[in-house]
Amino acid sequence: MRFKMQVLKQHICNSGRVIGKDILKVDSFLNHQIDVGLFQEIGKEFKNRFAKEKVTKILTIEASGIGIACITAQYFNNAPVVFAKKFTAKNLNSSVYESKVYSFTKDILYSIRVDKNYLDSGDNVLIVDDFLANGNAVLGLLDIARQAGAQIVGVAIVIEKSFQGGRETVLSQNVRLESLARIKSLDKGKITFVD
Amino acid sequence: MRFKMQVLKQHICNSGRVIGKDILKVDSFLNHQIDVGLFQEIGKEFKNRFAKEKVTKILTIEASGIGIACITAQYFNNAPVVFAKKFTAKNLNSSVYESKVYSFTKDILYSIRVDKNYLDSGDNVLIVDDFLANGNAVLGLLDIARQAGAQIVGVAIVIEKSFQGGRETVLSQNVRLESLARIKSLDKGKITFVD
Repeated sequence: MRFKMQVLKQHICNSGRVIGKDILKVDSFLNHQIDVGLFQEIGKEFKNRFAKEKVTKILTIEASGIGIACITAQYFNNAPVVFAKKFTAKNLNSSVYESKVYSFTKDILYSIRVDKNYLDSGDNVLIVDDFLANGNAVLGLLDIARQAGAQIVGVAIVIEKSFQGGRETVLSQNVRLESLARIKSLDKGKITFVD
Repeated sequence: MRFKMQVLKQHICNSGRVIGKDILKVDSFLNHQIDVGLFQEIGKEFKNRFAKEKVTKILTIEASGIGIACITAQYFNNAPVVFAKKFTAKNLNSSVYESKVYSFTKDILYSIRVDKNYLDSGDNVLIVDDFLANGNAVLGLLDIARQAGAQIVGVAIVIEKSFQGGRETVLSQNVRLESLARIKSLDKGKITFVD
């Protein structure tokens, strides 16, 4: 079953570009141009991994999480997708759940928000995103799901940069994490996977 | 065939909220929470309307166009989706197509950009977006597709606010436009459709 995800690793090796020691550009299939057929395989694999779980909502964050969340939702009985919106403005709307996220790459603190109408204590939430790096965005989504009183089924990630601490950060929250491709290092322009 | 789109109008009437004379909030199913089953019906209808066309690429703009573009692509033989990215910064990257878009609602001029690797003169492009208001975002996408030398198959919109001029703007470009729900007015809090 997991063997199928070789296709994802092949995409990463064939099309990914390493910049410096930290950045993996995969915008030919993941987050600028989107390979919808690959996303279907990813969605099926997320379903395989969380097959025993009841999922009532897929939670992600704009912008690049939206595509993978929508395709994935199809394999979870068309569970509604909710994407958190990003704001740099300070004005607080009292009808939203809000969390602060620090972006290392941009060195800014931004807010992410979800309208209270779209997440509540009856929900079983699967958090989906394209990348896991330091884990701050996922922490924000977990915070929002908890503010809503929702059950958290787990976190489903396409590509994890395992050398940036996000995995430990998520696991320290006692949340199940499934990453389809785990990257051990990008040193010297070479992509090395965990295992 | 078009009768099915009654389901979209029902969603708009049942869940849409009118704010002032111009704003229709449909974030319960279109652009914050996403009704994936409805998106599938929308994607099928876009396919019906452009059934005779060869589409090699679906072009949209972040963030709220991404979900509808990804689901729609499945009905066009999994054509790759490309979403234009928005920037307020001025730095120009020479390897991108870039167009300027004026946002009436935010009163700012922003750039939208597409990497030149993901659009070229061999492409037949269907432009997809959730909303058509004044048409400026679609004009920017048309500009980018033309810079790439691509053929433009048409523009596929979920909800058109027909009183804001975007329809005329798009048609003046000699481009085919298909909007699934056309709103004539939002006066006095009432949603009135064209026809």
